[in-house]
Order: sequence, then C-alpha cells, then structure tokens
Amino acid sequence: MNISELDTPALLVDLDVMERNLRRAADYAAKHKLRLRPHTKTHKIPALGRRQLELGAAGLTVAKVGEAEVMMAAEPPDLLVAYPVIGAGKLRRLMEVARRTRVTVALDSEYAARELSGAAGQAGIEVGVLAETDAGFGRVGVDMGDQLVELIRVIRRLPRLRYEGIAFYPGHIRKLDGEDDPEFVRIGRTLRQTLDRLNREGMEPRIVSGGSTPSLWHSHELEGMNEIRPGTYVFNDLNTVVSKACALEDCAASVLVTVVSTARSGQIIIDGGSKTFSSDGLIGGSGGFGRLVEDPRAVFHKMNEEHGYVDIRACERKFANGDRLRVIPNHICVAVNLHERIYGVRGDETETVWKVEGRGKLQ
Amino acid sequence: MNISELDTPALLVDLDVMERNLRRAADYAAKHKLRLRPHTKTHKIPALGRRQLELGAAGLTVAKVGEAEVMMAAEPPDLLVAYPVIGAGKLRRLMEVARRTRVTVALDSEYAARELSGAAGQAGIEVGVLAETDAGFGRVGVDMGDQLVELIRVIRRLPRLRYEGIAFYPGHIRKLDGEDDPEFVRIGRTLRQTLDRLNREGMEPRIVSGGSTPSLWHSHELEGMNEIRPGTYVFNDLNTVVSKACALEDCAASVLVTVVSTARSGQIIIDGGSKTFSSDGLIGGSGGFGRLVEDPRAVFHKMNEEHGYVDIRACERKFANGDRLRVIPNHICVAVNLHERIYGVRGDETETVWKVEGRGKLQ
Repeated sequence: MNISELDTPALLVDLDVMERNLRRAADYAAKHKLRLRPHTKTHKIPALGRRQLELGAAGLTVAKVGEAEVMMAAEPPDLLVAYPVIGAGKLRRLMEVARRTRVTVALDSEYAARELSGAAGQAGIEVGVLAETDAGFGRVGVDMGDQLVELIRVIRRLPRLRYEGIAFYPGHIRKLDGEDDPEFVRIGRTLRQTLDRLNREGMEPRIVSGGSTPSLWHSHELEGMNEIRPGTYVFNDLNTVVSKACALEDCAASVLVTVVSTARSGQIIIDGGSKTFSSDGLIGGSGGFGRLVEDPRAVFHKMNEEHGYVDIRACERKFANGDRLRVIPNHICVAVNLHERIYGVRGDETETVWKVEGRGKLQ
Repeated sequence: MNISELDTPALLVDLDVMERNLRRAADYAAKHKLRLRPHTKTHKIPALGRRQLELGAAGLTVAKVGEAEVMMAAEPPDLLVAYPVIGAGKLRRLMEVARRTRVTVALDSEYAARELSGAAGQAGIEVGVLAETDAGFGRVGVDMGDQLVELIRVIRRLPRLRYEGIAFYPGHIRKLDGEDDPEFVRIGRTLRQTLDRLNREGMEPRIVSGGSTPSLWHSHELEGMNEIRPGTYVFNDLNTVVSKACALEDCAASVLVTVVSTARSGQIIIDGGSKTFSSDGLIGGSGGFGRLVEDPRAVFHKMNEEHGYVDIRACERKFANGDRLRVIPNHICVAVNLHERIYGVRGDETETVWKVEGRGKLQ
C-alpha cells in the first residue's frame, strides 16, 4: 500500500534507516565487546525486539512488568526490568515472566530487594539483581560509595536473589566528539574507583550496565562498563540529533500528517498535536515540536491535543488543505506510545504494519 | 476490589464527584436553554457518553473519525465531529457512521466542504455542517466577517451538505467571576454583529456552537450562542482549577502511584512520568506536573517517561518505598489517552472498570 492511502496522522518508520541504526549499534557493541541489552521502551514491538536479538543483542530491557509480558513474544533469552518492581500484583506477574526466561531487576532499596526476594521465594525461582547506582543524573540509584556496598550486601544476603552487578543511567551526559565533558570525566573516574572498591570487597560485578542513546558512541570510553542499554537509537529523533548522537538522516521515524486548515494567514494547522507527538519539547529549550521534512523553515511552534500550529511565514513553498507532510518528532519514545500502529515503509510504500503491543502497558 | 490491590500507576475516577460534575453542567445547560453536546475526547468511553445523553445531552462531540466510530456504542442520536475531516479513507469511514446516526462536521474551508460533499454524494446521504469561525483563539476557523459569509455560501451551494450553523472555540477565554475580561466582551459584541449580519443575509444559523470547560459557567452571557461542547468538565483537572471553572474538590480523576525510590534525600520517585500523565504543564507557567493529594507541599517538578520526581523537602509527613499516593493531573484529557483502563471508585473501593475505548484513535 502506498502511504498516500494511509489515514493520518500515521507513524512511519523508514525500514532501511532503522536497519542501519540497529546494525550500527550492534557493530559498535561487538567491536568494543560491550554487551547490548537494548531498551525496548522506544519501539514496544516484539518483532523489533526479535530483530535486535538476531543482530546480536544479549537480551532485552523493559521498564515495566507489562512491557516484559509483551516482550516475551520476542523470546528473549534474558530480560532486564530496569525499574524497581514494587507491589504484590506486579511481583506475582513478574514471577510468571521469570518462569519463562532469565529475569534481572535493577533496584536501589532494601525494600525493593526484600519484596523481590519474597516473591521469588514464593514462586520457588531465582531472580537476577543489578544494584542501581546514581552516576549523577539524580533520579534513582544509591550513591557510588558506602550506600552501594551496603545495597549489594543486602542483595547478596537475601534468598533467591542472584547478584549480577550494578546499573546506572547517565541520562545527563551529552558528550560530544572531540570535547571534554567534565561530568563524563568525573563519572569515568568515580566508576573506576567504585569498581576497585567492589573488587576489594569481594563484590565484583559481572555486569556493569550503563549507557544511553545520547552517550552511545562514547560507551567504550567508560572503563569498566561492559553493558549498554540504549533505546532511542532504533528510530532516533530530533533530541538525538541535538545531542549529536545521530545525523538528521538517521531519524527513521516521522509522522505523516495532513493540512486541515489554512484559514489563518501565515499558518497551517496539521492534524497532529499532543495526542500524536506528545508535548515533549526539544532538549535545551525552544525549537518547536518537530521538524517539517518538506520545509524545515516551517516552525511547528504550538499544539493542542489534535491540532499542530505551523508558522509558514518563512517558507517559500505554498501549502494547501489536504497536503500531506512528514514531521520528525522531538522525542520518539513518547510519540510511539500514542500510536496503535507503526507503518514500516520503503520510499512511499508500506511494507509492514506493526501493532505497538507495549503501548500503555504502564503497570 | 479495594484500590490497594490495583497495580500502579492506575487512573482512578471518583464516581460521586464525576456524577456531580455531569449533573451540574446538565442543569446549567437546561437552566439557560443551552444545547449540550459534550466533547467526549476527555473520557473516550462510550459508557460515559451514554451517561451524558441520559442526563440530557442532545448529542456527543468527537475530534476524530476514529473516536466517532468508538462513540457509536453510546448510541448518540446526533454526533458532531468538531474537526475538518480530510482524506478519502476517513471520509468513507465517516459516511459509514453517518448511515447510523445524524452526523455534523465543523469545517473552515471550501476544500473540506467539497470533499465532504463528494463523499456524501457517493454514499447517497446528507451530512450536517457547521461553518467554523475563529473567535480569537487563532487556531482554525475563518474570520467572523466576509470570510464566514462566503464559507456559508459555499456550504449551502454544495449538494448533500445541510447548513446547520456556526461553531467556534473560545479556548483563550478565562473569564473569572466578577471580572470583566475585555476579550470576552469583544467576542460577545462580534458574535452579536455576526449573527445580525447572517440573519440579514438569510443565513440564520440554527446552531451557534461554542463553549469550553474554562468558560463553561459564563456561556449564557454570550448572547446568541445556543450550544456548548465542554469536555474536561466530566473529570476536571488542575488546569480547570487554575481557570476557576471548578474547585479542587471537583477534580474527579487522580492517578494512584507508588513510591519506587527514596535513594536521594529530599526526593521521592513515583512510578508515573510522561507516559502516565503526559508532559503538559500547568496553564500560566510552572507549577509542576500534578498535585499530590496526601501532601500538597510536595512538588512534582520533573518527569521522565516512567519516573516522576517529587521534591518532599517542604513536607512534614515521611515517605517510604511502597507508599501509595494520589496525584491530580494538570491535564486530564491527555492523561486519559495514555491509560488502557479507568477505575471508577467510591472511597477506596473500585466499583467499575472502563476500557478507554477511544484511546489512540487518532485517525
């Protein structure tokens, strides 16, 4: 089917670009002997998890138990839930997943460790654990010092938990080529000291899991880290471009929209707003809600739920009602989560339609 | 089921508060002889559309054809698509809906009118049309002058279209009790002049459709407007509170979340972020991403996809991992769109579970 036949807004993925993105990261990980456990929260599609595994991923990562359940269709040999699983219902469901594949949970508290140990005991199975530590992002994770040592001690003491190593998320790192980011240097130093200490304490981590898409290509520069969990790299987005972790032509995903109003001079309204793109802005301040492929001088500056406001005063080309345009989103992970389907395209032809199986699996 | 058994994050709706909200608007509309055609984009649940009809709504409003298809389960006697329907596929689907109930479309261009007329002709049915005009919001709609007269002329000339009146959306109005909003006064004056002119031109609109939740209770002050289409009022949210169209105790919806990390001093992380609440801010600038019911001094100041950052430094109560809290969202319409289910509760007991049938029906 030609994309001209699709009802809009429709989320398109260029299959060639996606495949290139997947291969590039897989090759990078292989070259640097980094374990790749991609975060599937970006695509939420088992078929793409399957493709990541075929290209050499050691396992898959998810944020929620609901995503883990969905991603089992990809038959991962190994599944990391990079999020503390808290609550009896979720723990019971996680144990069902753990009966079917090797499951590891990243957590940062004795509370979460005890709950997990209890659930694993009831289910009569063993679960892997990564001790979550904070590399400076300030979200989850204990400090890389006494707190980490104490957390690992707790994990190792609790029955049915298998201490596997440590995890962190350097989400604040935007290391650019050829530039020294003092925070990147600091993390490297702290990580080395931490690993030295853990070795001395007899707590050597088998897995040192970090990485993000923005810092992806610098992962090998963090000595001691041996696993990466990038997510966004499968499609990329404007935020990835801004962080210089990809070029514009590496953005595989775009939203096909239709011009639905030209009533106001100098402005067009497209049929996608915050329920299509999400209202996530561009990293580093203003810059609108997406890039119009057909004319980057157009400024997608405002949105309501189903309306996108595009300022076309700087554009040379004319726009008319019914025109179909493509917009590259700021943040593809939250955009995918708003769509029922993704259309895999080559040129203007739809080759595949994926259901976004993990959409809205919040629990 | 008690809400303590629900996996989080879970979207709860207090059934008593919701019923009160629905009745209040229905009573207001009846008292002022305003036709109520509530916008179902907020709840996206046919059972709630049904309830709105039971309480006297003349019909239902939707934004997209996909929502219209879903909302047919509420058996509306009348359905307004308050959005130009452009594109052959969508028009075909709309005609299927129009075979089953009386359908009206709001549109602002000759292009959209011709397309609709063509589709209606092919299907052999008649479709109602509201000429969309801009009351100053600057989104869709032609000017309330020559452009409107010309648009109505086009609509009346085209076969299979039934001219029903005019529609506008005063989304920029935040008229407060006892205060004169010059823009509200201006719209009132312009509307009167416009209606006078349309009457003179023999284009008297049967329906003059406007209104929004923020301006809901001032609708009767806009002389000539005889239909309102509020959406948010069913649940209300912090933005409605800010616009003084409801009190805090009228917010029927909250998200039940769990504390999943307390690793950082002065901060808790809850298991809901932009994939649970959306990243919509509070109208009028900063103010965080939601109000913590258990302690309003907590500041929900930042979010990632699945993490909410809550600053608890000003709080007296203590928080621990596993604590369950409720958060009232800034913008309930986009939050509902992220959830598969809504739990209707009385006190702490779940009485009803609704599937959000219209979630993600973007096309």
